[in-house]
Amino acid sequence: MHMLDEIKKRGKMVDEAIGQLLPIIHPDGLYQAARYLVDAGGKRIRPAMLMLAAESVGGDVKKVLPAAVSIELIHNFTLIHDDIMDQDEIRRGNPTVHVKWGLPAAILAGNTLYSKAFEIITNVDAPPKIVKRCLCILSKTCTDICEGQWMDMELAKQSSVSEGEYIKMVQKKTSVLFATSAMIGSLFGGATTEIADTLWQAESTIGVGFQIRDDVLDLITPEARLGKRRGNDLMEGKKTLIIINALTKGVKLDVPSRDSSREEINDAVQQLMDIGSIDYAMEKALELVEQGKSKLDVLPDSSAKELLIELADYMVTRTY
Amino acid sequence: MHMLDEIKKRGKMVDEAIGQLLPIIHPDGLYQAARYLVDAGGKRIRPAMLMLAAESVGGDVKKVLPAAVSIELIHNFTLIHDDIMDQDEIRRGNPTVHVKWGLPAAILAGNTLYSKAFEIITNVDAPPKIVKRCLCILSKTCTDICEGQWMDMELAKQSSVSEGEYIKMVQKKTSVLFATSAMIGSLFGGATTEIADTLWQAESTIGVGFQIRDDVLDLITPEARLGKRRGNDLMEGKKTLIIINALTKGVKLDVPSRDSSREEINDAVQQLMDIGSIDYAMEKALELVEQGKSKLDVLPDSSAKELLIELADYMVTRTY
Repeated sequence: MHMLDEIKKRGKMVDEAIGQLLPIIHPDGLYQAARYLVDAGGKRIRPAMLMLAAESVGGDVKKVLPAAVSIELIHNFTLIHDDIMDQDEIRRGNPTVHVKWGLPAAILAGNTLYSKAFEIITNVDAPPKIVKRCLCILSKTCTDICEGQWMDMELAKQSSVSEGEYIKMVQKKTSVLFATSAMIGSLFGGATTEIADTLWQAESTIGVGFQIRDDVLDLITPEARLGKRRGNDLMEGKKTLIIINALTKGVKLDVPSRDSSREEINDAVQQLMDIGSIDYAMEKALELVEQGKSKLDVLPDSSAKELLIELADYMVTRTY
Repeated sequence: MHMLDEIKKRGKMVDEAIGQLLPIIHPDGLYQAARYLVDAGGKRIRPAMLMLAAESVGGDVKKVLPAAVSIELIHNFTLIHDDIMDQDEIRRGNPTVHVKWGLPAAILAGNTLYSKAFEIITNVDAPPKIVKRCLCILSKTCTDICEGQWMDMELAKQSSVSEGEYIKMVQKKTSVLFATSAMIGSLFGGATTEIADTLWQAESTIGVGFQIRDDVLDLITPEARLGKRRGNDLMEGKKTLIIINALTKGVKLDVPSRDSSREEINDAVQQLMDIGSIDYAMEKALELVEQGKSKLDVLPDSSAKELLIELADYMVTRTY
């Protein structure tokens, strides 16, 4: 698929830039721990989106590369701390950072990625006014992510959650980093405020679709491909759109716990399929992506714009 | 004492600004957890230093107030995560954030302070070029603190540590935030690069003295005043200058563990006093402060300059 090749091409540029911008220096252990998850892979969708947003408004992709790295580091920082909070032991097919390096190291590795992300984006070669604006957006986004992660934990404790509450939580926890990637990329690329704001809105909507797809994949993907334990969200009591829909239908769910067998998890997933909650969530995801894509009309025609549209479709149809 | 009144006056301004810049908004629990340690007190030395540095070069103290808040939030963020890493249960006389709110909440509370600090400083009313410069310094400083905390953990595991290794670690873990406070305050206040750099060097040196004094206070202060368990560093195997000196003298130390009685801790402290290691460390601290203060000569005479000099003395003579 052409689009995925283009994402990979940009991902490779990002990987090379990470090697330069986040080298293993003294104290080596800290930087090894910080690089461990970053180097374990990931699709680099967010940095690629940032680069495409810059390109779509005529920006220089090489100039925005550090900003793309910055976004990827923020993403990995949130994953490292998230895994601690959720006590997850496997990520991208490997032991999570806190399992491999211990809790103190994982906290510091995450914090290092956080500060390096700000260091790196501050040094983007752009007018100080634009740099200041992008830092303003990025720091606000990091606050939003904390709020979203907090809301996610709170919702897990509630017995009943509305779709509105879920969407609001996901917009902060997940979508905002996509929206910010597109906005920062376009601003560094020279976009007007109007275009940058519209891209923000577009990817904020598409990002919710991405998270819904993520929730679905957590249930239906074979573990070897998922790179972590299947049905994790179920066991953690996460209120995904799928669960919310099932609860709305008044269905009594056999929710598995951490000690549940694979069979019990399979049964729970089958139940959610049978009552149509997984289909319901997927329809919602597709609907959101259509809404988001229509906002991309604000961009002049270009191959970058086409790639952003195809990327949006991919974000809700991907199989891992 | 006049100087302490002046610090308190500025501390009060900082507290008011924190109320405005970090309000308890939705999700309330997150912001309550984030404010918990911030509101528990603290001497506000770093923000006061930032404000005095601005005043000493003719800057407007009200304009730099958000930057002062930002520094205080970064400081509290590092304390919250530090307490998790060190498994400390008491701070400022209260249960630590992770004890009171749980581990996930403490991680998120820290991260929220981190991102709010960047949000707040980005919005300081100053030319974008200066804002960019200050953000560059602050983000690098946060990386340095991570490195310093890592080195601190590493040194605790080593059987032998040199004074040079200790100083290098402390410069990153502790001093750098004082140095940055002075530098950012002066830059926002309109200082030349030369003055800002010299203030950085001055407070970097004085900050090492501060940490040595902190290490000493951990041993000699009554618990009620210390606000946490006495001899914590000893039990955690921290390589303070006091311990390094004792080891250099070839003394076989009776190092207490977490399960040690208060009597055993008292004996260990007495031993360090008897062999002169506590005096040795204090002499070093006083020496460093003199070195740092001499650099403050770069400033024109003013009451703010006098206060910075008196503050430096206080940092190594304070009793809590």
